[in-house]
Amino acid sequence: MEKNNETLSVLRHSTSHVMAQAVQKLFPSAKLAIGPAIENGFYYDFDLTDGHAFTQEDLVKIEEEMKNIVKQNLSFEKYVIPDVEKQIAEFKAEGEIYKAELLEEHKNDNPTLYLTKDKDGNVLFNDLCAGPHLPNTSYIKANAFKLLKVAGAYWRGNAKNKMLQRIYATAFWSKEDLAEYLHFLEEAEKRDHRKLGAKLDLFSTRDELGGGLVLWHPNLAVVREEIENYWRTEHRKRGYVIVNTPHIAKSKLWEISGHADHYRENMFFIQKDEDQENEDQFILKPMNCPFHILIYQANRHSYRSLPLRMAELGTVYRKEKSGALSGLTRVQGFTQDDAHIFCTPEQLVDEINEIIDFVADTMAIFNMSFEVELSTRPESYVGEIENWNRAEAGLKEAMDRRGMKYDINEGDGAFYGPKIDFKVKDAIGRTWQCATIQLDFNLPERFDIKYQDKDGSMKTPVMLHRVIFGSMERFHGILIEHYAGAFPTWLAPAQVAIVPISNEKHIDFAEKVYKKMRDAGLRVNLDDRSESMNYKIRESLQDKKIPYVCVIGDKEIDTNAVAVRARGIGQAGVMGVDEFISKVKDEINSRSSESFAKSLVKA
Amino acid sequence: MEKNNETLSVLRHSTSHVMAQAVQKLFPSAKLAIGPAIENGFYYDFDLTDGHAFTQEDLVKIEEEMKNIVKQNLSFEKYVIPDVEKQIAEFKAEGEIYKAELLEEHKNDNPTLYLTKDKDGNVLFNDLCAGPHLPNTSYIKANAFKLLKVAGAYWRGNAKNKMLQRIYATAFWSKEDLAEYLHFLEEAEKRDHRKLGAKLDLFSTRDELGGGLVLWHPNLAVVREEIENYWRTEHRKRGYVIVNTPHIAKSKLWEISGHADHYRENMFFIQKDEDQENEDQFILKPMNCPFHILIYQANRHSYRSLPLRMAELGTVYRKEKSGALSGLTRVQGFTQDDAHIFCTPEQLVDEINEIIDFVADTMAIFNMSFEVELSTRPESYVGEIENWNRAEAGLKEAMDRRGMKYDINEGDGAFYGPKIDFKVKDAIGRTWQCATIQLDFNLPERFDIKYQDKDGSMKTPVMLHRVIFGSMERFHGILIEHYAGAFPTWLAPAQVAIVPISNEKHIDFAEKVYKKMRDAGLRVNLDDRSESMNYKIRESLQDKKIPYVCVIGDKEIDTNAVAVRARGIGQAGVMGVDEFISKVKDEINSRSSESFAKSLVKA
Repeated sequence: MEKNNETLSVLRHSTSHVMAQAVQKLFPSAKLAIGPAIENGFYYDFDLTDGHAFTQEDLVKIEEEMKNIVKQNLSFEKYVIPDVEKQIAEFKAEGEIYKAELLEEHKNDNPTLYLTKDKDGNVLFNDLCAGPHLPNTSYIKANAFKLLKVAGAYWRGNAKNKMLQRIYATAFWSKEDLAEYLHFLEEAEKRDHRKLGAKLDLFSTRDELGGGLVLWHPNLAVVREEIENYWRTEHRKRGYVIVNTPHIAKSKLWEISGHADHYRENMFFIQKDEDQENEDQFILKPMNCPFHILIYQANRHSYRSLPLRMAELGTVYRKEKSGALSGLTRVQGFTQDDAHIFCTPEQLVDEINEIIDFVADTMAIFNMSFEVELSTRPESYVGEIENWNRAEAGLKEAMDRRGMKYDINEGDGAFYGPKIDFKVKDAIGRTWQCATIQLDFNLPERFDIKYQDKDGSMKTPVMLHRVIFGSMERFHGILIEHYAGAFPTWLAPAQVAIVPISNEKHIDFAEKVYKKMRDAGLRVNLDDRSESMNYKIRESLQDKKIPYVCVIGDKEIDTNAVAVRARGIGQAGVMGVDEFISKVKDEINSRSSESFAKSLVKA
Repeated sequence: MEKNNETLSVLRHSTSHVMAQAVQKLFPSAKLAIGPAIENGFYYDFDLTDGHAFTQEDLVKIEEEMKNIVKQNLSFEKYVIPDVEKQIAEFKAEGEIYKAELLEEHKNDNPTLYLTKDKDGNVLFNDLCAGPHLPNTSYIKANAFKLLKVAGAYWRGNAKNKMLQRIYATAFWSKEDLAEYLHFLEEAEKRDHRKLGAKLDLFSTRDELGGGLVLWHPNLAVVREEIENYWRTEHRKRGYVIVNTPHIAKSKLWEISGHADHYRENMFFIQKDEDQENEDQFILKPMNCPFHILIYQANRHSYRSLPLRMAELGTVYRKEKSGALSGLTRVQGFTQDDAHIFCTPEQLVDEINEIIDFVADTMAIFNMSFEVELSTRPESYVGEIENWNRAEAGLKEAMDRRGMKYDINEGDGAFYGPKIDFKVKDAIGRTWQCATIQLDFNLPERFDIKYQDKDGSMKTPVMLHRVIFGSMERFHGILIEHYAGAFPTWLAPAQVAIVPISNEKHIDFAEKVYKKMRDAGLRVNLDDRSESMNYKIRESLQDKKIPYVCVIGDKEIDTNAVAVRARGIGQAGVMGVDEFISKVKDEINSRSSESFAKSLVKA
């Protein structure tokens, strides 16, 4: 067996069997459910029928026992179950009711066990399993696996079933790989936007509010305002028009759009008064598209007035299972930076290209690279096959023309059109689905929208759905983790903190500097608390992650200057108040992600 | 009887009797309902039992007959009904079932008729009426009243009753006053934001969407964006923080706030899934305040961190009767430019003062003056009477301190606190309720919010609700009418149109100028259609109400200039491209409501 990335999941699956073997040895009441390899590791679900709950110490003991097992150089052997009914009965006799249940379902699939055997051929462990597995435990390095945490998990993910205990773990081919991954986990933990959200007073969720609904505190609302300003300016520059539409609409609209049928379970329906017979049924919008089509319909269109690029920061609501809700990234209410482009078939490739430019230019501002996936026509689809072929060719042409690499997910498109997904990479290498370009052959037909072509005939426009950030909530969650809360100056909730060395002697000048910076449009705090200078500097730079602290003492007053400390850099020298303001303003206006102080310190 | 504004309603009520007399003469099947004086005129509701519908020609005939009646110098005489039951029977015998119904209800109120008699004492008309009336018809000037329009109106405003025909009319003491009022009506009609909204492609409403829900088209969304930019900048400058909150929340929140009880019939409740027992009940927000209190609660507060001024452009939904919905001014969904100020009692007067400044500064930008009304403690109220007294004294002190005049509506405040209403005056003298400052003794108690005072004790902050524009939808409706669609340059959807005299000869330079202006941030169109120059200029200035047209011909190319026409002003001379751009940018940046060209033409 080759030790490469492709075989990692085999290693992990085998290590999961070792973990189950160790657990059953140490906790004889443990019954086994399932234990698959997953992205970045594996887990196993156990039912401890004696009611014990795994502790952190238990995990250490299990790890030790696993090391013992691994050392014994046991073999993994496939075993085709000769008599399924008998095996089911055996599982039941052993109390392995979960295995029995699974085997019952797979009885016609030539089910197999995997046996873990010692040199003498004794079976030390068996599990219902399709494999494949490593030849033997010598492939598993005792210093390259790690048990991570315990979590509750319902049998088969169904809240009506028993809650089992899931042990998450991981395994690698080398201890260096494990160390790197554990460092990554630690880094990700430190960057967790839910923790930073509370620490930096960025946002909150509340039980009184309901799951997946976000309160944007002033600090994060500032970041959003800056990003929205960029978004609006950039859209106008690129020939978009911006609209505003309501958050509710009559069910009639959703019947025309088809969402009332296809999207029903994710929509919030509004109650009708029982004593009002003719009252309209309203629905909270899960999408902005039907509204934009209504605006398209408000005017006649010709090939000359297309493309029409219509954008909106539109807040939508989609019902999700409450268990899936968390922070900014798993929500029920979110603002899409949505746009719909109505164009002629001839304009399609150019439009795709301009959107790709827009995504690339935008992600570059945040120092994020991205990968691209194209999803093509699924088996069941609407629209003409020629249109699909032309559109898929157009999407490919647009990407090929700029020499872009992309993966193709054959047959993975929506029933109404092919799409391009952009997965952006954050500072610690994780990828996030953000921008999407989705073609739509369905809605233009359903709403019967038209434009007049050169020859005078009325034709159906091509419609593109497009987001750059995706969801503002989600993108801000990603940004918090990407920057680890240390936003670049143009986004930072507070950009400068002014710290007078002595409140008595330096406060007047500090106030003058404060007012000057505020009037220059900087987001600046004057820290006149009676704490020590060093405490204040540390708190501003490290805890509050403010990009700059300007310290003011006698020398600074004499020379009309400030002593600058930059976040993550340290002392950046003394400079004139105007010079500092001008440097910071330049940094902000260019939306730079690098402090001007960096070059000063280097030089 | 004095002929002044106070007695106008007596004149109008008497003229309404004359109108009813004329109608019954010309349309013998007409049965009378009610005919009161209203603001700016009067109406009468008729039931034409022969099924005839009043036409415009009918109104002319009725007016002529009224003039005949007025000339006869008939007297109006009060007549106490001696035998009510007999009178009811008489009304019924005459088919006057509406009068009969009303008299039945007022039988114990010493009901009276008013009789219209000729010189010989013959009763030509009688009506159930409490008066007062003019002594005789000689007070009514035949050239100072006017029948305006017919509309349907349900008997007693109830849709389950019969639809009657209502004739709206007006009357004044002099023909000059009538002429002035008719001119005002004509002007208001021309400025109707629903008509201008369609003509200038500003917004639309749609049956598929539902009543009182607005689609903001790109043109009006531009106006809103400019106003929101002003709003955000100005709030930050004045020490507000800005937040974003969701549009739905669990019923739990509205139970704490009390809205679930007191505001129930105006709230949109969201359906719960019947098969999800524990699913949350969500409600679409009719108010932003509870959300801002949740954000207040996310941190501890001391007297040092107050006042906390928290603002949001928050979109709320309030259920209204569909008959009351229209355009931008009567809607079910609207964005409040909402703010809540949490302060100590000592800070209250200063905060009120700053809000009044904010309102005054903002309305000055739109060339709008305003009047102020203070509404004080009603009979049933919550909170301590000392707090009410102190707060009312504070509101008065704030206004007195600046020498502001205000009306007092004694006892007209909400049960939870006194308030100040600002009524702004538009270009044709109408007043609109926009800004409000509302004190609230209720919500801080209900949510049990606190701050720590100087002495270390925990106290309840004072809470102010405050809007400047009120509703963005409504304010934009008012603005459209105020400006008659001719927005000042900073707000105009398109600010400049470029018209080359000949597309062949002048298009290249026109494109250069177009790009230069666009890059300078102006909203500019290049009109390269093959229409005549004069047609294009007229369309831009008059129909589309674009502030400036730049005409480009040979001469302009030679001198790198544009020939400027200004909306409402005409030719403003030839000037260098850069000079024009700079003048327009200055006008925009100063949010001026006057064209720079005005001074040029004067000079």
